[in-house]
Amino acid sequence: MSTAWVYAFDGGVAAGGRGDQALLGGKGANLAEMTQLGMPVPPGFTITTAVCRHHLEHGAYPDRLEADVMAAIEAIGRHTATGFGDPDAPLLISVRSGAPVSMPGMMDTILNLGLSPATVAGLAARSGNARFAWDCYRRFIAMYGEVVLGVVPLGEHDDSAFERLLSDLKYARGTTRDADLTAADLEVLCGQYKDAVRAATGAEFPDDPIAQLWGAIGAVMRSWSNPRADVYRRMHDIPAAMGTAVTVQAMVFGNLGDSSATGVCFTRDASTGERVLYGEYLGNAQGEDVVAGVRTPEPIAHMATTHPASFTALVEVCARLETHFRDMQDLEFTVQDGRLYMLQARTGKRTGKAMVKIAVDMVAEGLIDERAAILRIDPAKLDEMLHPTIDPRHRPASVARGLPASPGAAIGRVVFTARQAEAARAKGEDTILVRTETSPEDIHGMKAAVGILTARGGMTSHAAVVARGMGTCCITGCSALRVEAARGHATITRKDGPDLTIRHGDLVTLDGSTGEVFLGPLPLVPAAMSAELGELMTWVDRHRRLRVRTNADTPTDARTARAFGAEGIGLCRTEHMFFQPDRILAVREMILAADEAGRRAALAKILPMQEGDFVAIFTEMDGLPVTIRLLDPPLHEFLPHSEREIAEVAAALGASPEAIAAKVSAMTEANPMLGHRGCRLAITWPEIYETQAQAIAQAAVTATRAGVTVLPEIMIPFVIVPGELAGLRARVAAVVDPILAAAGVVLPYTIGTMIELPRACLVAGQIAAHADFFSFGTNDLTQSTLGLSRDDVASFLPAYLEAELLPKDPFVTLDAGGVGQLVELAVARGRAVRPGLKVGVCGEHGGDPASVAHFHRYGLDYVSCSPFRVPIARVAAARAALESS
Amino acid sequence: MSTAWVYAFDGGVAAGGRGDQALLGGKGANLAEMTQLGMPVPPGFTITTAVCRHHLEHGAYPDRLEADVMAAIEAIGRHTATGFGDPDAPLLISVRSGAPVSMPGMMDTILNLGLSPATVAGLAARSGNARFAWDCYRRFIAMYGEVVLGVVPLGEHDDSAFERLLSDLKYARGTTRDADLTAADLEVLCGQYKDAVRAATGAEFPDDPIAQLWGAIGAVMRSWSNPRADVYRRMHDIPAAMGTAVTVQAMVFGNLGDSSATGVCFTRDASTGERVLYGEYLGNAQGEDVVAGVRTPEPIAHMATTHPASFTALVEVCARLETHFRDMQDLEFTVQDGRLYMLQARTGKRTGKAMVKIAVDMVAEGLIDERAAILRIDPAKLDEMLHPTIDPRHRPASVARGLPASPGAAIGRVVFTARQAEAARAKGEDTILVRTETSPEDIHGMKAAVGILTARGGMTSHAAVVARGMGTCCITGCSALRVEAARGHATITRKDGPDLTIRHGDLVTLDGSTGEVFLGPLPLVPAAMSAELGELMTWVDRHRRLRVRTNADTPTDARTARAFGAEGIGLCRTEHMFFQPDRILAVREMILAADEAGRRAALAKILPMQEGDFVAIFTEMDGLPVTIRLLDPPLHEFLPHSEREIAEVAAALGASPEAIAAKVSAMTEANPMLGHRGCRLAITWPEIYETQAQAIAQAAVTATRAGVTVLPEIMIPFVIVPGELAGLRARVAAVVDPILAAAGVVLPYTIGTMIELPRACLVAGQIAAHADFFSFGTNDLTQSTLGLSRDDVASFLPAYLEAELLPKDPFVTLDAGGVGQLVELAVARGRAVRPGLKVGVCGEHGGDPASVAHFHRYGLDYVSCSPFRVPIARVAAARAALESS
Repeated sequence: MSTAWVYAFDGGVAAGGRGDQALLGGKGANLAEMTQLGMPVPPGFTITTAVCRHHLEHGAYPDRLEADVMAAIEAIGRHTATGFGDPDAPLLISVRSGAPVSMPGMMDTILNLGLSPATVAGLAARSGNARFAWDCYRRFIAMYGEVVLGVVPLGEHDDSAFERLLSDLKYARGTTRDADLTAADLEVLCGQYKDAVRAATGAEFPDDPIAQLWGAIGAVMRSWSNPRADVYRRMHDIPAAMGTAVTVQAMVFGNLGDSSATGVCFTRDASTGERVLYGEYLGNAQGEDVVAGVRTPEPIAHMATTHPASFTALVEVCARLETHFRDMQDLEFTVQDGRLYMLQARTGKRTGKAMVKIAVDMVAEGLIDERAAILRIDPAKLDEMLHPTIDPRHRPASVARGLPASPGAAIGRVVFTARQAEAARAKGEDTILVRTETSPEDIHGMKAAVGILTARGGMTSHAAVVARGMGTCCITGCSALRVEAARGHATITRKDGPDLTIRHGDLVTLDGSTGEVFLGPLPLVPAAMSAELGELMTWVDRHRRLRVRTNADTPTDARTARAFGAEGIGLCRTEHMFFQPDRILAVREMILAADEAGRRAALAKILPMQEGDFVAIFTEMDGLPVTIRLLDPPLHEFLPHSEREIAEVAAALGASPEAIAAKVSAMTEANPMLGHRGCRLAITWPEIYETQAQAIAQAAVTATRAGVTVLPEIMIPFVIVPGELAGLRARVAAVVDPILAAAGVVLPYTIGTMIELPRACLVAGQIAAHADFFSFGTNDLTQSTLGLSRDDVASFLPAYLEAELLPKDPFVTLDAGGVGQLVELAVARGRAVRPGLKVGVCGEHGGDPASVAHFHRYGLDYVSCSPFRVPIARVAAARAALESS
Repeated sequence: MSTAWVYAFDGGVAAGGRGDQALLGGKGANLAEMTQLGMPVPPGFTITTAVCRHHLEHGAYPDRLEADVMAAIEAIGRHTATGFGDPDAPLLISVRSGAPVSMPGMMDTILNLGLSPATVAGLAARSGNARFAWDCYRRFIAMYGEVVLGVVPLGEHDDSAFERLLSDLKYARGTTRDADLTAADLEVLCGQYKDAVRAATGAEFPDDPIAQLWGAIGAVMRSWSNPRADVYRRMHDIPAAMGTAVTVQAMVFGNLGDSSATGVCFTRDASTGERVLYGEYLGNAQGEDVVAGVRTPEPIAHMATTHPASFTALVEVCARLETHFRDMQDLEFTVQDGRLYMLQARTGKRTGKAMVKIAVDMVAEGLIDERAAILRIDPAKLDEMLHPTIDPRHRPASVARGLPASPGAAIGRVVFTARQAEAARAKGEDTILVRTETSPEDIHGMKAAVGILTARGGMTSHAAVVARGMGTCCITGCSALRVEAARGHATITRKDGPDLTIRHGDLVTLDGSTGEVFLGPLPLVPAAMSAELGELMTWVDRHRRLRVRTNADTPTDARTARAFGAEGIGLCRTEHMFFQPDRILAVREMILAADEAGRRAALAKILPMQEGDFVAIFTEMDGLPVTIRLLDPPLHEFLPHSEREIAEVAAALGASPEAIAAKVSAMTEANPMLGHRGCRLAITWPEIYETQAQAIAQAAVTATRAGVTVLPEIMIPFVIVPGELAGLRARVAAVVDPILAAAGVVLPYTIGTMIELPRACLVAGQIAAHADFFSFGTNDLTQSTLGLSRDDVASFLPAYLEAELLPKDPFVTLDAGGVGQLVELAVARGRAVRPGLKVGVCGEHGGDPASVAHFHRYGLDYVSCSPFRVPIARVAAARAALESS
């Protein structure tokens, strides 16, 4: 093989660059790129993902790897005037994983590798700081022991052996600060650490740096397949076969004293998108101290005071990197003895709000164009901007405040473990996960919770990064909080009042945009669009082909959706109107009437109400199409169940409560989803659709006379044979046309059908002969195609997702492999018979970006979704168009 | 246009023949054929179906028709030395409909057309029988009045005006017999009839024979579209666009006195198939007297005594026609003054038993070959032979006896109207429809009833013909019966005891094979195959490609099916074993156990029972494949519901009844058909399938050691993604293989899947990669594809069939237009991945002949059906093979 297994970067020269992420991982590629740009990057090399894949496949490294790695190590030594294992000038290195896509916190890292009893003295001599050298060695033994040798705490809530030894020693020395331990203390500790390793593993801790190196490389490669990483990949659709690269780099030290520091920094504010440096640092510390959130770091701007020269250098590096990469960068750096080193640069994760602002600002700055800006928008993340916030008029004083780690407001019941959050989610309960700090093991629970609150950690802690990635409201570093998970409560210490106890199950409200915590549930208000989002949306609308409509059953929904850019109503569910308290009695009379005359009498009561609804909706949607679905659900959904309700209907119908109860019981269906519903109701009881058609026609006349442009599209649901549509279409027209004619109103109304059963897809050509439009009801189509009742999946769908039998919940993202085939087939067959047939989708999938991309590919004319998802669908539609052009 | 609109037949010369049924109708084509054969056929002509289609389309006759008809009328006159409207020698004609396929009693006929005040005297003179002439005229006015002029009775139960006038006159003359009325009486009656026509229609009865003729032709063509004919066509799959021919023929008279007669005759016994003339005649009568069943006719053999010469001629005609047409014929004839005239010949309807015997006998007689014999078998009619009969050991004396009009035994509750029968059917109740006589208006009710009993009518009456066509048990001419439908009861007059009253709702048993009526329900026994059927089956098996298996859950079912020729078990539903009283408690323990250990403990109790079942079934099916479906239905089907059952399970599990009741409630699903069932149970609780696999393997070892050849096919149900099958297949094999290996048994078992959801069809290629076989579960596939819950269709499916929105109940006959597409697709995709993949079907459709034909076309390897339908499926498979070869 002629492929290079190892790519070196040092002194301005590097093999590979930003285009080589698949081979070098994001970290390795960017280090190579930064090296080429002349940035201050410590020298190093990257072992490619091909090696990991080779190892996954063959269980062994490629033949030439060892020689290549050793040659690269020697090259680092040459550049740093050190030697691996050299007792006088020891080379110390970091070994890090680097996946082609970012998996923050998911995989393992080892620092200070190369230390041994022989080299630690050399380090002490060269740095002139024996305490520093022994501290490095102590950290290395602990990290290597945990990551490579598998020395782990005994229980979930236990400290590690190393932490216990450290605590014991500090206790013995009468201090709580690491800094109070002397070099001699630390040397003792190193001995104790090695004893602990021997006790746990039965083997000596390795002193040979080369053995250490290969141990670390192996551990990083194994970490690719660990369960945490597996979960993360599944959540983020990362193929397991991709493999990780391993980046080996000369150590630089942020813990050499007060002129040293380490930090992370975003080139723009990852939360708001503002063009200011954003990040945190810790003086005299190593990098993992920042990420782990153990010490609360300083804001990055403070460096101007503490490390002014390095800060100036950092600002310059940031500016150059942004210009070079044309995107906001997430950087890791270390200042060693006043000199800045860049350890990592990667595209920075950001909130939805920041995503939009940065993309729009960068167009204004000339860094990118409109198309690139749109392609940078993850439509799902827009949801964050559209999250509800706490109503400012009803905002009490908060009981605690932390860092605003991920925006949006959330209300839920307090739980203290990931497991509790998952269990509650399975029961449909919203929870707030409250932890001292989170760890990768908590991912399932974080996903299950609607909000996350931690006592420790900063804006770049695990909890904050993961929560922003998921768009979940999160507050970190809430230092007044003391969590006692095992005892099922947490305490909030307050300056201005008595301490508060929060117990398992208490309702709390979080404001992730301010970092405030409130007791009890607060009223929330919908989000508003930012100016940048408005501008982005005008670009989006220029590039998309798919129209975006909304599912709206009320004038209020219609107004909201129109404000979000909805171009019509794709689904107005008339039955939702039936459920209103002032109507349900008449609806029940209709259903339970003994004969057609009785049904018509009850329908006559409903008619003016429906008519009024339609007038209001037509008025809101003036000039835009409104698709009205005639009655769809099984009638027994409307039936009375309580004794009071039954008595009420019985009285209205002049029947006995017993007779009504018997009829209610007789109407109960074994499988209502597959029962007497949709147009089947109108086949047996045509007067229902006739009345609805009358209400639509009369409303259209009223609205038209009031100057409204009305474009009704009447949709007949649950069709399986063309005859249903042909017959009901004729019946509807027979009601509507005379009303319009009598009123002298000319109205271009259409009649179409909802395609929501496999048979309808299969005979779509025959159905199209009678349909002005198709609208796919992908919820029902998913249910019938997969034989999955949405109401009943909870008992087994989680097991399917867990076992990866299904890649996604098919009710969230369209099952392209199954349901998608039917949609494609139906579009093709429908348009073969009726070229140019208008086709849309009105299931929940209409607001899911991945599904919208499928619908674009299938050639649909529009998607319809809930009002708050309209902007998301618009962006998703534009992305789909740009990606396929 | 060069097409002839009119085809004449007379004096041994005819245009067209038996091949022209589509153009001339069955009757016209056969009259032409018989004329060509030199049979004594009264001269006439047929107006083609093309004229009817022209009329349906354009609302008018073709231009040349009038001239052609008049020329043909003149030709008849020439041959019979009469003239149309000639007062001295009047030509009288019949005008009859003749559809390309037989629709007995469905359409209209007019006899004696051409009579008027002017010609009636001429007829009297020529026949020397004034009473005959006026009786003809009276009959003609009444018939023409009803059929052409639309003079109908006022209410459903009313007599017609004409019948009332006749009854009144007989009352006035002090008689109950028509024969006692004189020529003068009948002349008065003719005047009264014409007054009645004028009163009903406001117009004079037409005296011009040409006006009469065109009126009659128009009425016949209109009758093609009448509702009765529509219903009949729908039941028998006859396209409405086919149209009817109109056959016009010179009248001959069976009512010219004692040397005249009229009758119907089958060339073989339509009930048993025996090679004897079979039929009935009435002396001195017109044909409709026989068909209407108003007078009870004489057996045909009696003619040898009463009309010996004509009988000899008839026997000769029958022999010649059978040789010519090579099938049993159904003939209408009239003897006029001692001379035999053949009025109609058509292929005779017959019982299933007669169908088989005639086909097999004709092969022996050299009339037809094996292939023709098979193609003559309507597989659905075999069901009649397989109907239960009354257990002879428990057969009491009957309370009445009629004619054995349609074989088989039936038990049901008495109803007196078609409407009541339909209403009861909708509620799932079996009824016996008891009527004085039936009429075409009763068809729906006859279809809904399990048995039909009439007081009047012979073996060729409406009730008898229709019932045989439907395979419904029927007794006609039960003269001891007096039906008072309006009062809701009937009376049976007995010679040997007091009269009996049968009331609405009483249970009765009919024996349609003997004509006996019994009070109350009697024990029934299954039917046995006849010798002829056995022979036919050996031919059938030579010609079919599809294998036929059975759905059997017990050793008894397996044995029965094997006796009927089943070639294996295509579906053994293990859950049916779970429902047995001695197991249900263990099954409930399994479902309600708190954890896997609890489930395994309960499964351990079930294991030996299942193992024993499998040993017994394997033994019965020695050498034949047995497909065992692992647990499929939603678990809550097995749950306890009564307090006693709940207490029982609670005790067994050491839990409180409240806890068990709560768990039962929690397991209830909104749509169990789409819920936690099939392989989903094994994804969440793998121990269930593991235990079943263990039982299968252990049973296979036991049976093999006992010398049985065991061929197990393990079927995993309700698959939607390939991963389910791949994973569960591995689990099953992991249980089975070690058991076989430990026992040293080598067994070629296979593992496949049931394809019963649309998604499985769509991804059949991916699934086939893990499947040794597919078996289509077309019941579930129909439910999901059409969104139809079989348990809930009763409220609307009848309306769909009524409105012809669906051609057939899709649970009876495969929905080829929808579900069939998915089956075809799945077969193609499965075999593309795994060539030669074994594919079968195990839904109810496997025993439906029309569906079997589809499955043959789709290239399936086998069908599986209930034991009693195995012979039907075998014949259907052979027919399908022959028809497509």
